[in-house]
Amino acid sequence: MSETDSFGELVAHLRRIETVDGISNTLDWDQQTMMPPKAAALRGEQQALLAGLSHAYISDPRIGDWLTALEGSEDPVRAATSRNLGRTYRREKRVPADLVDALARAKSEGFGAWVQAKKSSDWASFEPKLQHLVDLTRRRAEAIDAERHPYEVLLEEFDPGSTVATLRDTFGRLRDGLVPLLEAIAGAPQLPGIDRELSVEGQESLHREIAEALGYDFGAGRLDHAEHPFTSGLGPGDVRITTHLSADDFFGGLGSTVHETGHALYEQGLPHAHRGTTVAEAASFGLHESQSRFWENFVGRSEAFFRWLAPKLPAHFEGATPDADALYRAANRVMPSLIRVEADEVTYNLHVIVRFELELALFEGTLAVSDLPAAWNAKYEEYLGVTPPDDARGVLQDVHWSSGAFAYFPSYTLGNLYAASMGKALEETLPALWSQIEAGEFAPILGWLREKVHARGHLLEAPEIVKEAVGERDHVADLLDYLWQRHGALYGVSRPTSV
Amino acid sequence: MSETDSFGELVAHLRRIETVDGISNTLDWDQQTMMPPKAAALRGEQQALLAGLSHAYISDPRIGDWLTALEGSEDPVRAATSRNLGRTYRREKRVPADLVDALARAKSEGFGAWVQAKKSSDWASFEPKLQHLVDLTRRRAEAIDAERHPYEVLLEEFDPGSTVATLRDTFGRLRDGLVPLLEAIAGAPQLPGIDRELSVEGQESLHREIAEALGYDFGAGRLDHAEHPFTSGLGPGDVRITTHLSADDFFGGLGSTVHETGHALYEQGLPHAHRGTTVAEAASFGLHESQSRFWENFVGRSEAFFRWLAPKLPAHFEGATPDADALYRAANRVMPSLIRVEADEVTYNLHVIVRFELELALFEGTLAVSDLPAAWNAKYEEYLGVTPPDDARGVLQDVHWSSGAFAYFPSYTLGNLYAASMGKALEETLPALWSQIEAGEFAPILGWLREKVHARGHLLEAPEIVKEAVGERDHVADLLDYLWQRHGALYGVSRPTSV
Repeated sequence: MSETDSFGELVAHLRRIETVDGISNTLDWDQQTMMPPKAAALRGEQQALLAGLSHAYISDPRIGDWLTALEGSEDPVRAATSRNLGRTYRREKRVPADLVDALARAKSEGFGAWVQAKKSSDWASFEPKLQHLVDLTRRRAEAIDAERHPYEVLLEEFDPGSTVATLRDTFGRLRDGLVPLLEAIAGAPQLPGIDRELSVEGQESLHREIAEALGYDFGAGRLDHAEHPFTSGLGPGDVRITTHLSADDFFGGLGSTVHETGHALYEQGLPHAHRGTTVAEAASFGLHESQSRFWENFVGRSEAFFRWLAPKLPAHFEGATPDADALYRAANRVMPSLIRVEADEVTYNLHVIVRFELELALFEGTLAVSDLPAAWNAKYEEYLGVTPPDDARGVLQDVHWSSGAFAYFPSYTLGNLYAASMGKALEETLPALWSQIEAGEFAPILGWLREKVHARGHLLEAPEIVKEAVGERDHVADLLDYLWQRHGALYGVSRPTSV
Repeated sequence: MSETDSFGELVAHLRRIETVDGISNTLDWDQQTMMPPKAAALRGEQQALLAGLSHAYISDPRIGDWLTALEGSEDPVRAATSRNLGRTYRREKRVPADLVDALARAKSEGFGAWVQAKKSSDWASFEPKLQHLVDLTRRRAEAIDAERHPYEVLLEEFDPGSTVATLRDTFGRLRDGLVPLLEAIAGAPQLPGIDRELSVEGQESLHREIAEALGYDFGAGRLDHAEHPFTSGLGPGDVRITTHLSADDFFGGLGSTVHETGHALYEQGLPHAHRGTTVAEAASFGLHESQSRFWENFVGRSEAFFRWLAPKLPAHFEGATPDADALYRAANRVMPSLIRVEADEVTYNLHVIVRFELELALFEGTLAVSDLPAAWNAKYEEYLGVTPPDDARGVLQDVHWSSGAFAYFPSYTLGNLYAASMGKALEETLPALWSQIEAGEFAPILGWLREKVHARGHLLEAPEIVKEAVGERDHVADLLDYLWQRHGALYGVSRPTSV
């Protein structure tokens, strides 16, 4: 069979897998937004059937032959497909079936145990489940590649192209740079917040206007409520945003909507013409997060953004006074806290770095699972100056580990690092950037992201896409610069020259 | 293999089919209520994949063996499964594959041609497509059973247990009984309508209260908007209603919601414990329609219902005056019209009978497709006293024939006939029926329907279920009695004693 025929067959097969996964994701979206509670068991049956179907397609032995036929192709789409799919395929093939089953069971049991343990802040009941998950996950990493650092093997699933060495270096420098910024802010008077309640209906109509202004295509999407906000990329023409709104948390809801809009703009901008080739997919979790965090923070918490937004408020909230400066200050309050998902932009990365350092130590064997709570609390004390009063607000707060998602957390900070350099590059490319934002002209920004990031899909690995987009830049320096610039000015503190 | 093992395998297989169909119906619900317009092509791919999967399951040759093993079983659930599934299986097996393909294409082309033809009232462009559909459908009926009346073969798909002879007799007697009622009403002064606009938001909140009061379980369902209202029975725990509301059509929206609630109550009350055996399914389209029409008309347009409803109006509509009598009169205005879906309760069955007589003649070969528009207009003139000004408001108004759904229309009037006898039986069983409705106590009615209809599933054929529920009754006499009683009183006309 010619390479061409074989590639056509592979693409058709991958599109079938994508279609099944798209159906499954649509049902998942429905479950989190629309489904009546008593349908839970039925939905479980439906998802199990689709999972079985997807697994059967992915295990098709012809994939190995199709991949062999692709080897050495010089066409960039085929070469990328060979690289992306080949990696996934080789990884999955090396994991013995009994380990796959054991992990699936351990994740399901781990999640159930975590839900209960978090409720009653009962670490002891969760510890053996987590120990089991860590053991199985280490075995999985060894099965995939016994020669490599086990954490790097895990990392590859979320952020191919990133290494333990670079993460250790960048995260270490970032941590060392954040601590003095946080100390400086702690010594300054706190910024004022906004007490007023703002109706959920008003927030929703405002958020629709914002998402549309940023470039989100409502003809190919929706905005709905969900307990835990997420974005569903269900396929070309169907990318749905969810958000979580409450009358007493205007900035939490705003950040959530703009964050998810960033994810959705990436999904809507992927090169769908290459659907089925793996090139039409996002390049990494970190790059995905860079898009959400870029819009949420760099744009969505900027002074220019609030100058654009403030005059719109009275149309959505009766009697609102459009004070851009007050909004800007209130949106950028920094306060070390216990919970990652509620953290401000400055402290957020410290929450992530705590988790990275702990899970790295777990997989290097220098930290025992039983010592996790103490190590967690010590790091929170050291980096953030706060001490969890219980494990529910400490080591048990996140769902990730309970579901076996180790090495997932770095994506969050990788996203912030990439986003900072994109911001710097954009400021250089578009000299009128901030006045355009103030005028509500977001198209030049989106145009740049579309060209440099979204349309590249997974043709290159994420670090290469970023390098081609922003040039050779020090992401840590860019992020620290940006944070010092915005928050230093807001809090009236200056960067020590010795750093 | 023992009969028991074999039956277990069959049930597991049928549950898989049900699960796939449930997924497909969920996507269809999503498409009609939630999906962004640009997702149409993607959704088409998803549905095609599921249709292929469902077809592969249904064509599994083991089904024939499983059915053979079931033959002669005395267990009522197994006997019913053998009867229901055996019928479908034998029918499908007899239709040659090339005819299945040709029909699928003809339906798709027919539907497309009909959409265009209806827009421009252009019968000539639709006629050859309809001719082709009639030809293929007649071939299909002959392939299934060349000895039986072709129309009865088609009817069996929607209402197994009904025959051409009984339909001809009952529909003929009904038509003859409706014409004098309509004439009497036409000679009386028209009832007053209600001019006031009522907000869609108010209608929606009122309808939620109504559906819940009737017994619909919102924990296992939802109420949403759709252009063409429908009910989705997606499986146990997931039965979703849609409705269509507009500020200037209070009674249209109310009828739609109560109608769909009736369908949904049936679906929620099916014997789900028998899922996978065919016994947990609705017994026929006609019986399904009896449940929607019973609640919509017998209950939902009754004087007692409006006495219960009227006092609720001010809470949903600012400044509404709760006048039960005015509502009752306005909800029961009779007016011969051109369009079936907008027809009142008295004229509705004449619309259906026109279609039944015409499609019967088509399949008996006594009417040519090319003569349909003239025959249609003649019957509208004769039975309803109105003449369509164009084919868009005449023979082209319904979607059914364009999609190859011949012999579907009788279900609507069968539903009305069954519902009338259920109403009579309930009046005898529950002497306090109308005062209970006025007090909002719908549980006794639902309890009776649950026991006599819903919980029976498809254990018996629909005519047998109705007979066991209401006894030996003349459905035509019951329906005419009921219509004369309600509308005779409202319009102040008496039934001629000679009829």
